[in-house]
Amino acid sequence: MHVEVVEVSPRDGLQNESVILSTAAKVDLVSRLVAAGATRIEAVSFAHPRLVPAMADAEEVMAGVPRQAGVSYAGLVLNRRGLDRALATGVDEVNVVVCASDTFSQRNQNASTDESLAAAIDVVRDARAAGLFTTVSIATAFGCPFEGEVAAERVLDLARRSADAGADEICFADTIGVGVPTQVRSLADGFRSTHETALRFHFHNTRNTGYANAAAAIDAGVMTLDASAGGIGGCPFAPRATGNIATEDLIYLVERMGMSTGWNLLAVLPIADFLSAELGKTVPSMLSQAGSFPPSA
Amino acid sequence: MHVEVVEVSPRDGLQNESVILSTAAKVDLVSRLVAAGATRIEAVSFAHPRLVPAMADAEEVMAGVPRQAGVSYAGLVLNRRGLDRALATGVDEVNVVVCASDTFSQRNQNASTDESLAAAIDVVRDARAAGLFTTVSIATAFGCPFEGEVAAERVLDLARRSADAGADEICFADTIGVGVPTQVRSLADGFRSTHETALRFHFHNTRNTGYANAAAAIDAGVMTLDASAGGIGGCPFAPRATGNIATEDLIYLVERMGMSTGWNLLAVLPIADFLSAELGKTVPSMLSQAGSFPPSA
Repeated sequence: MHVEVVEVSPRDGLQNESVILSTAAKVDLVSRLVAAGATRIEAVSFAHPRLVPAMADAEEVMAGVPRQAGVSYAGLVLNRRGLDRALATGVDEVNVVVCASDTFSQRNQNASTDESLAAAIDVVRDARAAGLFTTVSIATAFGCPFEGEVAAERVLDLARRSADAGADEICFADTIGVGVPTQVRSLADGFRSTHETALRFHFHNTRNTGYANAAAAIDAGVMTLDASAGGIGGCPFAPRATGNIATEDLIYLVERMGMSTGWNLLAVLPIADFLSAELGKTVPSMLSQAGSFPPSA
Repeated sequence: MHVEVVEVSPRDGLQNESVILSTAAKVDLVSRLVAAGATRIEAVSFAHPRLVPAMADAEEVMAGVPRQAGVSYAGLVLNRRGLDRALATGVDEVNVVVCASDTFSQRNQNASTDESLAAAIDVVRDARAAGLFTTVSIATAFGCPFEGEVAAERVLDLARRSADAGADEICFADTIGVGVPTQVRSLADGFRSTHETALRFHFHNTRNTGYANAAAAIDAGVMTLDASAGGIGGCPFAPRATGNIATEDLIYLVERMGMSTGWNLLAVLPIADFLSAELGKTVPSMLSQAGSFPPSA
Protein backbone atom coordinates (compact mmCIF):
# COMPACT_ATOMS: atom_id res chain seq x y z
CA MET A 1 0.00 0.00 0.00
CA HIS A 2 1.18 3.47 -0.88
CA VAL A 3 0.51 6.73 0.96
CA GLU A 4 0.96 9.94 -1.02
CA VAL A 5 2.43 12.68 1.16
CA VAL A 6 1.61 16.12 -0.22
CA GLU A 7 4.32 18.53 0.91
CA VAL A 8 2.90 21.86 2.11
CA SER A 9 5.85 23.46 3.93
CA PRO A 10 6.55 26.03 1.18
CA ARG A 11 2.97 27.33 1.39
CA ASP A 12 1.04 26.51 4.58
CA GLY A 13 4.27 26.07 6.50
CA LEU A 14 6.11 29.26 5.58
CA GLN A 15 2.92 31.33 5.43
CA ASN A 16 2.45 30.86 9.17
CA GLU A 17 6.01 31.49 10.30
CA SER A 18 7.08 34.90 11.55
CA VAL A 19 10.33 34.82 9.56
CA ILE A 20 9.85 35.39 5.82
CA LEU A 21 12.28 33.43 3.68
CA SER A 22 13.98 34.89 0.62
CA THR A 23 12.87 33.67 -2.78
CA ALA A 24 16.20 31.87 -3.15
CA ALA A 25 15.70 30.07 0.16
CA LYS A 26 12.19 29.02 -0.87
CA VAL A 27 13.51 27.63 -4.14
CA ASP A 28 16.27 25.88 -2.20
CA LEU A 29 13.65 24.34 0.11
CA VAL A 30 11.57 23.06 -2.80
CA SER A 31 14.66 21.67 -4.53
CA ARG A 32 15.64 19.78 -1.40
CA LEU A 33 12.10 18.40 -1.07
CA VAL A 34 12.12 17.16 -4.66
CA ALA A 35 15.52 15.55 -4.10
CA ALA A 36 14.08 13.81 -1.00
CA GLY A 37 11.22 12.31 -2.97
CA ALA A 38 8.37 14.85 -2.98
CA THR A 39 6.05 14.35 -5.95
CA ARG A 40 3.27 16.79 -5.02
CA ILE A 41 4.18 20.14 -3.51
CA GLU A 42 1.91 23.01 -2.55
CA ALA A 43 4.56 25.56 -3.39
CA VAL A 44 2.88 28.96 -3.50
CA SER A 45 -0.24 30.99 -2.76
CA PHE A 46 -1.88 33.37 -5.21
CA ALA A 47 -3.78 35.20 -2.49
CA HIS A 48 -3.42 38.98 -2.71
CA PRO A 49 0.16 39.94 -1.70
CA ARG A 50 -1.22 42.59 0.66
CA LEU A 51 -3.10 39.89 2.60
CA VAL A 52 -0.34 37.25 2.54
CA PRO A 53 2.96 39.11 2.15
CA ALA A 54 5.02 35.96 2.87
CA MET A 55 3.76 34.53 -0.43
CA ALA A 56 4.09 37.69 -2.55
CA ASP A 57 6.91 36.19 -4.64
CA ALA A 58 4.82 33.27 -5.96
CA GLU A 59 5.80 33.97 -9.59
CA GLU A 60 9.50 34.18 -8.76
CA VAL A 61 9.38 30.96 -6.70
CA MET A 62 7.61 29.05 -9.46
CA ALA A 63 10.15 30.35 -11.99
CA GLY A 64 12.98 28.91 -9.89
CA VAL A 65 11.79 25.49 -8.76
CA PRO A 66 12.97 22.36 -10.56
CA ARG A 67 10.41 21.22 -13.13
CA GLN A 68 10.65 17.54 -13.89
CA ALA A 69 8.46 14.61 -14.81
CA GLY A 70 6.61 13.14 -11.85
CA VAL A 71 6.63 16.30 -9.74
CA SER A 72 3.40 18.26 -9.56
CA TYR A 73 3.24 21.81 -8.19
CA ALA A 74 0.12 23.30 -6.66
CA GLY A 75 -0.78 26.90 -5.91
CA LEU A 76 -3.46 28.12 -3.55
CA VAL A 77 -6.11 30.13 -5.38
CA LEU A 78 -9.13 31.99 -4.01
CA ASN A 79 -10.59 33.69 -7.10
CA ARG A 80 -10.30 34.34 -10.83
CA ARG A 81 -7.45 36.81 -10.36
CA GLY A 82 -5.49 34.18 -8.44
CA LEU A 83 -6.26 31.61 -11.12
CA ASP A 84 -4.93 33.91 -13.82
CA ARG A 85 -1.67 34.22 -11.89
CA ALA A 86 -1.60 30.44 -11.38
CA LEU A 87 -2.07 29.82 -15.10
CA ALA A 88 0.65 32.32 -15.97
CA THR A 89 3.19 30.57 -13.72
CA GLY A 90 2.40 27.12 -15.07
CA VAL A 91 1.47 25.31 -11.87
CA ASP A 92 0.06 21.81 -12.35
CA GLU A 93 -2.68 22.03 -9.74
CA VAL A 94 -4.75 24.60 -7.92
CA ASN A 95 -6.05 24.28 -4.39
CA VAL A 96 -9.18 26.33 -3.73
CA VAL A 97 -10.17 26.91 -0.10
CA VAL A 98 -13.69 27.12 1.30
CA CYS A 99 -14.07 27.69 5.06
CA ALA A 100 -16.87 25.65 6.60
CA SER A 101 -17.27 28.17 9.42
CA ASP A 102 -18.99 31.39 8.31
CA THR A 103 -17.23 33.48 10.94
CA PHE A 104 -13.83 32.09 10.00
CA SER A 105 -14.63 32.62 6.31
CA GLN A 106 -15.56 36.27 6.88
CA ARG A 107 -12.41 36.92 8.90
CA ASN A 108 -10.07 34.92 6.67
CA GLN A 109 -11.46 35.60 3.19
CA ASN A 110 -13.81 38.55 3.76
CA ALA A 111 -16.64 36.48 2.30
CA SER A 112 -19.36 34.22 3.67
CA THR A 113 -19.04 30.46 3.22
CA ASP A 114 -21.69 30.57 0.47
CA GLU A 115 -19.90 33.37 -1.39
CA SER A 116 -16.62 31.53 -1.02
CA LEU A 117 -18.13 28.28 -2.32
CA ALA A 118 -19.59 30.10 -5.33
CA ALA A 119 -16.17 31.60 -6.09
CA ALA A 120 -14.55 28.19 -5.64
CA ILE A 121 -16.97 26.56 -8.07
CA ASP A 122 -16.12 29.21 -10.68
CA VAL A 123 -12.40 28.62 -10.17
CA VAL A 124 -12.84 24.84 -10.41
CA ARG A 125 -14.70 25.18 -13.71
CA ASP A 126 -12.15 27.55 -15.22
CA ALA A 127 -9.12 25.68 -13.88
CA ARG A 128 -10.33 22.37 -15.24
CA ALA A 129 -11.11 24.00 -18.59
CA ALA A 130 -7.46 25.11 -18.58
CA GLY A 131 -6.33 21.53 -17.88
CA LEU A 132 -5.31 21.92 -14.23
CA PHE A 133 -5.93 19.35 -11.52
CA THR A 134 -8.23 21.00 -8.96
CA THR A 135 -8.57 20.40 -5.24
CA VAL A 136 -11.20 22.02 -3.04
CA SER A 137 -10.05 22.20 0.57
CA ILE A 138 -12.74 22.52 3.22
CA ALA A 139 -11.06 24.55 5.96
CA THR A 140 -12.10 24.45 9.65
CA ALA A 141 -13.67 21.06 8.83
CA PHE A 142 -13.01 19.81 12.39
CA GLY A 143 -13.76 22.95 14.40
CA CYS A 144 -13.53 26.74 14.37
CA PRO A 145 -11.69 28.99 16.83
CA PHE A 146 -14.63 31.43 16.79
CA GLU A 147 -17.72 29.22 16.43
CA GLY A 148 -16.47 26.07 18.19
CA GLU A 149 -18.06 22.92 16.81
CA VAL A 150 -18.59 22.69 13.04
CA ALA A 151 -21.27 20.18 12.03
CA ALA A 152 -20.01 17.30 9.89
CA GLU A 153 -23.14 17.57 7.74
CA ARG A 154 -22.24 21.16 6.84
CA VAL A 155 -18.70 20.10 5.93
CA LEU A 156 -19.98 17.18 3.87
CA ASP A 157 -22.49 19.39 2.06
CA LEU A 158 -19.71 21.76 0.97
CA ALA A 159 -17.57 18.82 -0.10
CA ARG A 160 -20.39 17.29 -2.13
CA ARG A 161 -21.25 20.55 -3.86
CA SER A 162 -17.57 21.03 -4.72
CA ALA A 163 -17.33 17.52 -6.09
CA ASP A 164 -20.52 17.99 -8.09
CA ALA A 165 -18.96 21.13 -9.58
CA GLY A 166 -16.13 19.01 -10.93
CA ALA A 167 -13.31 19.20 -8.36
CA ASP A 168 -10.82 16.38 -8.90
CA GLU A 169 -10.12 16.04 -5.19
CA ILE A 170 -11.65 17.11 -1.86
CA CYS A 171 -9.35 17.88 1.06
CA PHE A 172 -10.74 18.04 4.60
CA ALA A 173 -8.52 20.40 6.58
CA ASP A 174 -8.15 20.58 10.36
CA THR A 175 -7.04 24.19 10.13
CA ILE A 176 -6.64 24.73 13.88
CA GLY A 177 -5.66 21.23 15.00
CA VAL A 178 -8.63 20.16 17.09
CA GLY A 179 -9.77 17.02 15.25
CA VAL A 180 -9.85 13.42 16.46
CA PRO A 181 -9.93 10.04 14.67
CA THR A 182 -13.69 9.56 15.03
CA GLN A 183 -14.23 12.77 13.03
CA VAL A 184 -11.79 11.59 10.36
CA ARG A 185 -13.69 8.35 9.95
CA SER A 186 -17.03 10.10 9.90
CA LEU A 187 -16.03 12.63 7.22
CA ALA A 188 -14.37 9.98 5.06
CA ASP A 189 -17.22 7.50 5.32
CA GLY A 190 -19.87 10.23 5.04
CA PHE A 191 -18.42 11.63 1.85
CA ARG A 192 -17.87 8.26 0.24
CA SER A 193 -21.42 7.17 0.97
CA THR A 194 -22.46 9.49 -1.87
CA HIS A 195 -19.34 10.37 -3.91
CA GLU A 196 -16.30 8.71 -5.42
CA THR A 197 -14.17 11.86 -5.83
CA ALA A 198 -10.63 11.41 -4.47
CA LEU A 199 -10.16 12.37 -0.81
CA ARG A 200 -7.24 13.97 0.97
CA PHE A 201 -6.73 15.14 4.58
CA HIS A 202 -4.76 18.05 6.00
CA PHE A 203 -3.91 17.70 9.69
CA HIS A 204 -2.33 20.00 12.22
CA ASN A 205 -0.78 18.61 15.40
CA THR A 206 -1.76 21.56 17.59
CA ARG A 207 -3.31 19.31 20.25
CA ASN A 208 -1.23 16.19 19.57
CA THR A 209 -3.97 14.45 17.61
CA GLY A 210 -2.51 14.98 14.13
CA TYR A 211 -0.72 11.66 13.73
CA ALA A 212 -3.60 9.71 15.27
CA ASN A 213 -5.79 11.40 12.66
CA ALA A 214 -3.34 10.48 9.91
CA ALA A 215 -3.40 6.83 11.00
CA ALA A 216 -7.20 6.97 11.11
CA ALA A 217 -7.35 8.40 7.58
CA ILE A 218 -5.15 5.59 6.27
CA ASP A 219 -7.26 3.10 8.19
CA ALA A 220 -10.31 4.56 6.43
CA GLY A 221 -8.56 4.12 3.09
CA VAL A 222 -7.66 7.77 2.43
CA MET A 223 -4.13 7.53 1.10
CA THR A 224 -3.33 11.19 0.36
CA LEU A 225 -2.18 13.27 3.32
CA ASP A 226 -0.62 16.71 3.67
CA ALA A 227 2.49 17.28 5.76
CA SER A 228 5.12 19.96 6.25
CA ALA A 229 8.87 19.29 6.48
CA GLY A 230 10.07 19.95 10.02
CA GLY A 231 6.45 20.37 11.09
CA ILE A 232 6.80 24.08 10.39
CA GLY A 233 3.72 26.24 10.23
CA GLY A 234 2.41 27.22 13.62
CA CYS A 235 -1.15 28.27 14.34
CA PRO A 236 -2.22 31.92 14.41
CA PHE A 237 -4.96 31.06 16.92
CA ALA A 238 -2.60 29.38 19.40
CA PRO A 239 0.65 31.34 19.19
CA ARG A 240 2.63 28.95 21.39
CA ALA A 241 1.41 25.86 19.56
CA THR A 242 2.64 23.86 16.60
CA GLY A 243 1.03 23.58 13.17
CA ASN A 244 1.15 21.03 10.39
CA ILE A 245 2.11 17.43 11.01
CA ALA A 246 5.74 16.90 10.01
CA THR A 247 6.66 15.17 6.77
CA GLU A 248 9.44 13.12 8.35
CA ASP A 249 7.28 11.99 11.27
CA LEU A 250 4.44 11.02 8.92
CA ILE A 251 6.83 9.09 6.68
CA TYR A 252 8.17 7.26 9.75
CA LEU A 253 4.65 6.37 10.90
CA VAL A 254 3.58 5.17 7.46
CA GLU A 255 6.71 3.22 6.56
CA ARG A 256 7.00 1.53 9.98
CA MET A 257 3.45 0.29 9.39
CA GLY A 258 4.74 -1.45 6.28
CA MET A 259 3.47 0.99 3.65
CA SER A 260 5.48 2.99 1.13
CA THR A 261 5.66 6.75 0.55
CA GLY A 262 8.30 6.99 -2.16
CA TRP A 263 10.26 9.46 0.01
CA ASN A 264 13.77 8.96 1.32
CA LEU A 265 13.37 9.58 5.05
CA LEU A 266 17.08 10.09 5.65
CA ALA A 267 17.09 12.83 3.00
CA VAL A 268 14.23 14.66 4.72
CA LEU A 269 15.92 14.95 8.12
CA PRO A 270 18.55 17.48 6.95
CA ILE A 271 15.71 19.65 5.58
CA ALA A 272 14.51 20.09 9.17
CA ASP A 273 17.99 21.37 10.06
CA PHE A 274 17.95 23.69 7.03
CA LEU A 275 14.55 25.06 8.12
CA SER A 276 15.69 25.45 11.75
CA ALA A 277 18.62 27.53 10.50
CA GLU A 278 16.48 29.62 8.14
CA LEU A 279 13.74 30.23 10.72
CA GLY A 280 16.10 30.68 13.65
CA LYS A 281 14.34 28.15 15.89
CA THR A 282 14.11 24.44 16.55
CA VAL A 283 11.39 23.00 14.34
CA PRO A 284 8.76 20.80 16.04
CA SER A 285 9.22 17.51 14.20
CA MET A 286 10.29 14.65 16.48
CA LEU A 287 12.34 12.51 14.09
CA SER A 288 14.69 15.46 13.66
CA GLN A 289 15.26 15.33 17.44
CA ALA A 290 15.17 11.61 18.15
CA GLY A 291 16.48 10.10 14.93
CA SER A 292 14.91 7.27 12.99
CA PHE A 293 14.52 3.64 14.02
CA PRO A 294 15.91 1.04 13.77
CA PRO A 295 19.23 2.85 14.30
CA SER A 296 20.71 1.57 11.02
CA ALA A 297 17.78 2.95 9.01
CA MET B 1 -17.04 3.71 26.90
CA HIS B 2 -14.47 4.46 29.55
CA VAL B 3 -10.71 4.73 29.19
CA GLU B 4 -8.65 4.36 32.35
CA VAL B 5 -5.65 6.70 32.32
CA VAL B 6 -2.90 5.43 34.62
CA GLU B 7 -0.85 8.42 35.76
CA VAL B 8 2.90 7.75 35.66
CA SER B 9 4.44 11.23 35.97
CA PRO B 10 5.57 10.74 39.60
CA ARG B 11 7.56 7.63 38.63
CA ASP B 12 8.41 7.24 34.92
CA GLY B 13 8.08 10.97 34.38
CA LEU B 14 10.24 12.31 37.21
CA GLN B 15 12.71 9.43 37.02
CA ASN B 16 13.80 10.59 33.56
CA GLU B 17 14.07 14.32 34.27
CA SER B 18 17.41 15.90 35.11
CA VAL B 19 15.91 17.97 37.96
CA ILE B 20 15.10 15.93 41.08
CA LEU B 21 12.00 17.17 42.91
CA SER B 22 11.83 17.43 46.68
CA THR B 23 9.67 14.92 48.52
CA ALA B 24 7.21 17.72 49.31
CA ALA B 25 6.95 18.66 45.62
CA LYS B 26 6.33 15.02 44.69
CA VAL B 27 3.56 14.77 47.27
CA ASP B 28 2.15 18.06 45.99
CA LEU B 29 2.17 16.65 42.44
CA VAL B 30 0.35 13.49 43.48
CA SER B 31 -2.21 15.48 45.48
CA ARG B 32 -2.92 17.69 42.46
CA LEU B 33 -3.31 14.59 40.27
CA VAL B 34 -5.80 13.04 42.68
CA ALA B 35 -7.75 16.30 42.81
CA ALA B 36 -7.84 16.30 39.00
CA GLY B 37 -9.35 12.83 38.87
CA ALA B 38 -6.48 10.32 38.89
CA THR B 39 -7.58 6.94 40.21
CA ARG B 40 -4.45 4.90 39.45
CA ILE B 41 -1.04 6.43 40.00
CA GLU B 42 2.38 4.87 39.59
CA ALA B 43 3.83 6.96 42.38
CA VAL B 44 7.19 5.47 43.29
CA SER B 45 9.94 3.03 42.37
CA PHE B 46 11.51 0.55 44.77
CA ALA B 47 14.56 0.08 42.60
CA HIS B 48 17.83 0.38 44.54
CA PRO B 49 18.36 4.06 45.49
CA ARG B 50 21.90 3.90 44.16
CA LEU B 51 20.58 2.98 40.72
CA VAL B 52 17.63 5.37 40.68
CA PRO B 53 18.48 8.23 43.04
CA ALA B 54 15.50 10.31 41.88
CA MET B 55 13.20 7.72 43.50
CA ALA B 56 15.19 7.19 46.71
CA ASP B 57 12.46 8.80 48.85
CA ALA B 58 9.74 6.29 47.89
CA GLU B 59 8.79 5.61 51.52
CA GLU B 60 8.52 9.31 52.35
CA VAL B 61 6.44 10.01 49.23
CA MET B 62 4.03 7.19 50.00
CA ALA B 63 3.72 8.41 53.59
CA GLY B 64 2.65 11.83 52.32
CA VAL B 65 0.24 11.17 49.48
CA PRO B 66 -3.53 11.38 50.04
CA ARG B 67 -4.99 7.93 50.68
CA GLN B 68 -8.65 7.74 49.81
CA ALA B 69 -11.21 5.28 48.49
CA GLY B 70 -11.03 4.87 44.74
CA VAL B 71 -7.38 5.87 44.38
CA SER B 72 -4.88 3.08 43.84
CA TYR B 73 -1.12 3.60 44.18
CA ALA B 74 1.45 1.49 42.40
CA GLY B 75 5.16 1.10 42.98
CA LEU B 76 7.71 -0.28 40.56
CA VAL B 77 9.37 -3.41 41.90
CA LEU B 78 12.19 -5.49 40.42
CA ASN B 79 12.84 -8.12 43.12
CA ARG B 80 11.97 -9.46 46.58
CA ARG B 81 13.81 -6.63 48.33
CA GLY B 82 11.74 -4.09 46.39
CA LEU B 83 8.55 -5.99 47.18
CA ASP B 84 9.34 -5.89 50.89
CA ARG B 85 9.68 -2.13 50.67
CA ALA B 86 6.45 -1.92 48.67
CA LEU B 87 4.58 -3.96 51.26
CA ALA B 88 5.94 -1.83 54.09
CA THR B 89 4.69 1.38 52.47
CA GLY B 90 1.23 0.02 51.80
CA VAL B 91 1.00 0.51 48.04
CA ASP B 92 -2.05 -1.05 46.39
CA GLU B 93 -0.29 -2.39 43.30
CA VAL B 94 3.13 -3.42 42.13
CA ASN B 95 4.45 -3.07 38.61
CA VAL B 96 7.18 -5.57 37.75
CA VAL B 97 9.30 -4.89 34.68
CA VAL B 98 10.73 -7.45 32.28
CA CYS B 99 12.75 -6.16 29.31
CA ALA B 100 12.06 -8.06 26.09
CA SER B 101 15.49 -7.15 24.73
CA ASP B 102 18.32 -9.09 26.37
CA THR B 103 20.85 -6.32 25.79
CA PHE B 104 18.54 -3.70 27.24
CA SER B 105 17.78 -6.00 30.18
CA GLN B 106 21.48 -6.48 30.94
CA ARG B 107 22.19 -2.76 30.77
CA ASN B 108 19.05 -1.69 32.63
CA GLN B 109 18.63 -4.42 35.22
CA ASN B 110 21.97 -6.21 35.12
CA ALA B 111 20.15 -9.46 34.36
CA SER B 112 19.18 -11.36 31.23
CA THR B 113 15.57 -11.37 30.11
CA ASP B 114 15.16 -14.92 31.39
CA GLU B 115 16.62 -14.07 34.80
CA SER B 116 14.43 -11.00 34.95
CA LEU B 117 11.31 -12.99 34.05
CA ALA B 118 12.11 -15.56 36.74
CA ALA B 119 12.46 -12.77 39.32
CA ALA B 120 9.21 -11.19 38.09
CA ILE B 121 7.33 -14.46 38.46
CA ASP B 122 8.55 -14.75 42.06
CA VAL B 123 7.45 -11.19 42.79
CA VAL B 124 4.04 -11.77 41.20
CA ARG B 125 3.47 -14.88 43.34
CA ASP B 126 4.52 -13.16 46.56
CA ALA B 127 2.74 -9.90 45.82
CA ARG B 128 -0.51 -11.65 45.03
CA ALA B 129 -0.18 -13.74 48.20
CA ALA B 130 0.10 -10.43 50.06
CA GLY B 131 -3.09 -9.18 48.38
CA LEU B 132 -1.56 -6.71 45.94
CA PHE B 133 -2.73 -6.16 42.38
CA THR B 134 0.19 -7.09 40.12
CA THR B 135 1.14 -5.81 36.69
CA VAL B 136 3.97 -7.20 34.59
CA SER B 137 5.27 -4.60 32.15
CA ILE B 138 7.11 -5.87 29.08
CA ALA B 139 9.65 -3.13 28.35
CA THR B 140 11.16 -2.48 24.90
CA ALA B 141 8.12 -4.32 23.52
CA PHE B 142 8.19 -2.22 20.32
CA GLY B 143 11.94 -1.97 19.75
CA CYS B 144 15.31 -1.70 21.48
CA PRO B 145 17.89 1.07 21.15
CA PHE B 146 20.68 -1.53 21.08
CA GLU B 147 19.18 -4.52 19.27
CA GLY B 148 16.75 -2.71 16.97
CA GLU B 149 13.71 -4.81 16.13
CA VAL B 150 12.19 -6.94 18.90
CA ALA B 151 10.08 -9.83 17.64
CA ALA B 152 6.43 -9.68 18.62
CA GLU B 153 6.47 -13.42 19.32
CA ARG B 154 9.19 -12.92 21.94
CA VAL B 155 7.17 -10.14 23.57
CA LEU B 156 4.02 -12.25 23.51
CA ASP B 157 5.83 -15.23 24.98
CA LEU B 158 7.00 -13.14 27.96
CA ALA B 159 3.50 -11.75 28.38
CA ARG B 160 1.91 -15.19 28.31
CA ARG B 161 4.36 -16.64 30.81
CA SER B 162 3.74 -13.69 33.11
CA ALA B 163 -0.01 -14.14 32.82
CA ASP B 164 0.31 -17.87 33.44
CA ALA B 165 2.27 -17.03 36.61
CA GLY B 166 -0.75 -15.12 37.88
CA ALA B 167 -0.17 -11.47 36.91
CA ASP B 168 -3.42 -9.49 37.09
CA GLU B 169 -2.46 -7.28 34.17
CA ILE B 170 0.07 -7.21 31.33
CA CYS B 171 1.42 -3.86 30.15
CA PHE B 172 3.18 -3.57 26.79
CA ALA B 173 5.61 -0.67 27.04
CA ASP B 174 7.13 1.30 24.16
CA THR B 175 10.08 2.28 26.31
CA ILE B 176 11.91 4.27 23.65
CA GLY B 177 8.97 5.56 21.61
CA VAL B 178 9.41 3.75 18.31
CA GLY B 179 6.11 1.86 18.03
CA VAL B 180 3.34 2.22 15.45
CA PRO B 181 -0.37 1.29 15.43
CA THR B 182 0.10 -1.95 13.50
CA GLN B 183 2.35 -3.22 16.31
CA VAL B 184 -0.24 -2.21 18.91
CA ARG B 185 -2.92 -4.17 17.13
CA SER B 186 -0.68 -7.15 16.65
CA LEU B 187 0.38 -7.34 20.32
CA ALA B 188 -3.18 -6.84 21.58
CA ASP B 189 -4.73 -9.36 19.21
CA GLY B 190 -1.85 -11.81 19.60
CA PHE B 191 -2.08 -11.85 23.37
CA ARG B 192 -5.84 -12.13 23.44
CA SER B 193 -5.84 -15.02 21.02
CA THR B 194 -4.60 -17.14 23.93
CA HIS B 195 -5.23 -15.18 27.18
CA GLU B 196 -7.92 -13.11 28.87
CA THR B 197 -5.67 -11.31 31.36
CA ALA B 198 -6.27 -7.55 31.41
CA LEU B 199 -4.11 -5.52 29.02
CA ARG B 200 -2.58 -2.09 29.34
CA PHE B 201 -0.27 -0.05 27.09
CA HIS B 202 2.50 2.40 27.93
CA PHE B 203 3.41 4.77 25.09
CA HIS B 204 6.14 7.33 24.60
CA ASN B 205 5.77 10.07 21.99
CA THR B 206 9.47 10.20 21.10
CA ARG B 207 8.77 9.91 17.37
CA ASN B 208 5.25 11.42 17.37
CA THR B 209 3.51 8.05 17.19
CA GLY B 210 2.35 7.89 20.84
CA TYR B 211 -1.16 9.24 20.40
CA ALA B 212 -1.75 7.26 17.20
CA ASN B 213 -0.76 4.20 19.23
CA ALA B 214 -3.15 5.20 22.02
CA ALA B 215 -6.01 5.53 19.54
CA ALA B 216 -5.05 2.15 18.07
CA ALA B 217 -5.07 0.54 21.51
CA ILE B 218 -8.55 1.89 22.21
CA ASP B 219 -9.64 0.74 18.77
CA ALA B 220 -8.36 -2.72 19.68
CA GLY B 221 -10.40 -2.61 22.89
CA VAL B 222 -7.53 -1.99 25.33
CA MET B 223 -8.98 0.61 27.67
CA THR B 224 -6.11 1.12 30.14
CA LEU B 225 -3.35 3.48 29.05
CA ASP B 226 -0.43 5.12 30.83
CA ALA B 227 0.22 8.85 30.56
CA SER B 228 2.30 11.48 32.30
CA ALA B 229 1.00 14.95 33.25
CA GLY B 230 2.70 17.58 31.11
CA GLY B 231 4.22 14.79 29.03
CA ILE B 232 7.25 14.89 31.31
CA GLY B 233 9.78 12.09 31.20
CA GLY B 234 12.20 12.38 28.34
CA CYS B 235 14.15 9.52 26.86
CA PRO B 236 17.68 8.65 28.00
CA PHE B 237 18.44 7.24 24.52
CA ALA B 238 17.39 10.41 22.66
CA PRO B 239 18.41 13.30 24.87
CA ARG B 240 16.67 15.99 22.82
CA ALA B 241 13.44 14.02 22.54
CA THR B 242 10.25 13.80 24.56
CA GLY B 243 9.03 10.86 26.64
CA ASN B 244 5.64 9.70 27.87
CA ILE B 245 2.44 10.76 26.17
CA ALA B 246 0.84 13.58 28.15
CA THR B 247 -2.14 12.98 30.40
CA GLU B 248 -3.96 16.13 29.29
CA ASP B 249 -3.43 15.40 25.58
CA LEU B 250 -4.61 11.80 26.01
CA ILE B 251 -7.70 12.95 27.92
CA TYR B 252 -8.46 15.44 25.13
CA LEU B 253 -8.10 12.73 22.47
CA VAL B 254 -10.26 10.26 24.37
CA GLU B 255 -13.01 12.65 25.45
CA ARG B 256 -13.31 14.36 22.05
CA MET B 257 -13.91 10.86 20.64
CA GLY B 258 -16.93 10.63 22.93
CA MET B 259 -15.46 8.42 25.64
CA SER B 260 -15.02 9.19 29.33
CA THR B 261 -11.90 9.22 31.49
CA GLY B 262 -13.25 10.42 34.83
CA TRP B 263 -10.61 13.17 34.85
CA ASN B 264 -11.29 16.90 34.89
CA LEU B 265 -9.22 18.16 31.96
CA LEU B 266 -9.28 21.78 33.10
CA ALA B 267 -7.82 20.71 36.44
CA VAL B 268 -4.93 18.91 34.72
CA LEU B 269 -3.74 21.90 32.70
CA PRO B 270 -2.42 23.83 35.74
CA ILE B 271 -0.41 20.74 36.73
CA ALA B 272 1.60 21.22 33.53
CA ASP B 273 2.37 24.78 34.66
CA PHE B 274 3.33 23.48 38.11
CA LEU B 275 5.68 20.93 36.53
CA SER B 276 7.17 23.53 34.17
CA ALA B 277 7.98 25.68 37.19
CA GLU B 278 9.41 22.78 39.22
CA LEU B 279 11.49 21.43 36.32
CA GLY B 280 12.53 24.83 35.01
CA LYS B 281 11.46 24.17 31.42
CA THR B 282 8.41 24.14 29.19
CA VAL B 283 6.83 20.70 29.37
CA PRO B 284 6.04 19.00 26.04
CA SER B 285 2.26 18.55 26.30
CA MET B 286 0.33 20.43 23.61
CA LEU B 287 -2.92 21.20 25.43
CA SER B 288 -0.91 23.20 27.92
CA GLN B 289 0.30 25.36 24.99
CA ALA B 290 -2.78 25.50 22.78
CA GLY B 291 -5.64 25.25 25.26
CA SER B 292 -8.61 22.92 25.04
CA PHE B 293 -11.41 22.94 22.48
CA PRO B 294 -14.15 24.03 22.09
CA PRO B 295 -12.99 27.31 23.67
CA SER B 296 -15.66 27.17 26.38
CA ALA B 297 -14.59 23.69 27.51
